[in-house]
Amino acid sequence: MLVVKAGGNGGLNTEAICGDIAELVRKGEQVVLVHGGSHETNVISEKLGHPSRFVTSVSGHVSRYTDRETLEIFTMVTAGRLNKLLVERLQQLGVNAFGLSGLDGRLLEARRKPALRVVENGKPKVLRGDWSGRIERVNAALLRTLLASGYVPIVAPVAVSHEGEALNVDGDRVAAAISAALKADGLIILSNVPGLLRRFPDENTLIHHIPKDRAEEHLKLYAQGRMKKKLLGTIEAVRGGVGMVIIADGRVENPIRQALAGEGTLIG
Amino acid sequence: MLVVKAGGNGGLNTEAICGDIAELVRKGEQVVLVHGGSHETNVISEKLGHPSRFVTSVSGHVSRYTDRETLEIFTMVTAGRLNKLLVERLQQLGVNAFGLSGLDGRLLEARRKPALRVVENGKPKVLRGDWSGRIERVNAALLRTLLASGYVPIVAPVAVSHEGEALNVDGDRVAAAISAALKADGLIILSNVPGLLRRFPDENTLIHHIPKDRAEEHLKLYAQGRMKKKLLGTIEAVRGGVGMVIIADGRVENPIRQALAGEGTLIG
Repeated sequence: MLVVKAGGNGGLNTEAICGDIAELVRKGEQVVLVHGGSHETNVISEKLGHPSRFVTSVSGHVSRYTDRETLEIFTMVTAGRLNKLLVERLQQLGVNAFGLSGLDGRLLEARRKPALRVVENGKPKVLRGDWSGRIERVNAALLRTLLASGYVPIVAPVAVSHEGEALNVDGDRVAAAISAALKADGLIILSNVPGLLRRFPDENTLIHHIPKDRAEEHLKLYAQGRMKKKLLGTIEAVRGGVGMVIIADGRVENPIRQALAGEGTLIG
Repeated sequence: MLVVKAGGNGGLNTEAICGDIAELVRKGEQVVLVHGGSHETNVISEKLGHPSRFVTSVSGHVSRYTDRETLEIFTMVTAGRLNKLLVERLQQLGVNAFGLSGLDGRLLEARRKPALRVVENGKPKVLRGDWSGRIERVNAALLRTLLASGYVPIVAPVAVSHEGEALNVDGDRVAAAISAALKADGLIILSNVPGLLRRFPDENTLIHHIPKDRAEEHLKLYAQGRMKKKLLGTIEAVRGGVGMVIIADGRVENPIRQALAGEGTLIG
């Protein structure tokens, strides 16, 4: 069983990713696809007159500030647009895809972050009214039921809080949590870089292998921006018992096949 | 088992509908909720710079012209916004709601309409490039699996064509097709009128009961606009073996409880 994450920052070869999934499914492989939606949310938020706002945490992470209106746009775009376009494409390729968000059947339960500690204009500040969370539980039984019935789950990065509210969650962490909950054979995180780079953005400095016990060290030394969350996700997945974790290029032809053939950064 | 349709034309008491569903589920009743999204699609299409276009068929029906961009907005709004807001509200009320569209697991298979025959400026015309369809098959096994696992399915009115394309389908006909496929005990269609009116829009002329064999006569004599599709849906449901079909007021307190207590128009 394989969990694939296709990034939300644009530039990926979605057509090739869907083609690879169709090939794996034809061969009898069980696949779960998790997607993002950050870039498309920015585009549609702008058009709807509520542009995205990004904040920098005191620890230096840049993240979206998800007020209630942003949450509703994010949910609409990820669960209603990107998710259904992927399901449609896969259905056209003969895959019985099944799109869902973490709200549906409480697939992804998360704890809402009480407040964001951010830095604005050089000053620390507490931002309230943020609708994002950290995943605490995956309804693995639901995914197993869908997989056993022959469906291919396509998961949008929206979770449900313990109180039943929708929450924006990070897609890489969703993929890590799902692969750990299912004890998947592999997790492949596809993005618009070839893997972890020793000197970002020089693609000739790709790190081919990170031993399990040196992942945190690599995170601190080499990961920039979004790559930090991807590497955090891989560490969680490896700890959760996932056999093989790969960060690979999602822009190429046959991105999943190439990752399985040894391209990208293998963690573990 | 009960199938409830909550109209997409605005003005409904969604809070009260969710409250009634939560009460039924607590009592052990199996419920499937089908929703619309026409009004909200108009609002968001307008904001996104692609306003809705309505056409009149040669037989006099007014319907949405669903070009590809409209299909994508319709899908985003119904499956990603309205569907997830309903799921969120029901989750907050303790109901394990599960939102899905007809694309997901091929829940609703439809045949794409080859072309719309419309009248524009008094002249008949053939409109191509329409992405709407007529439901031909319901994946009842999928709904039964969800219901048996304790989930409450919430269905958005998007179907999948035999070729795997997304299609806009009528929510009332979706509810009718699902209730017939599940051989539901009842179908309740909630809208912003009290039921079928003898002289629309005079709400004092409510028709309380339509015998099964006189439904088509009533359709021709009294149904106006959207009510035609609702009545068509009820005829399909009754023919499909649904025990009790009610068209009732969705604007009131306890709309489902009131319909079950004898309010609205009972067909059959």
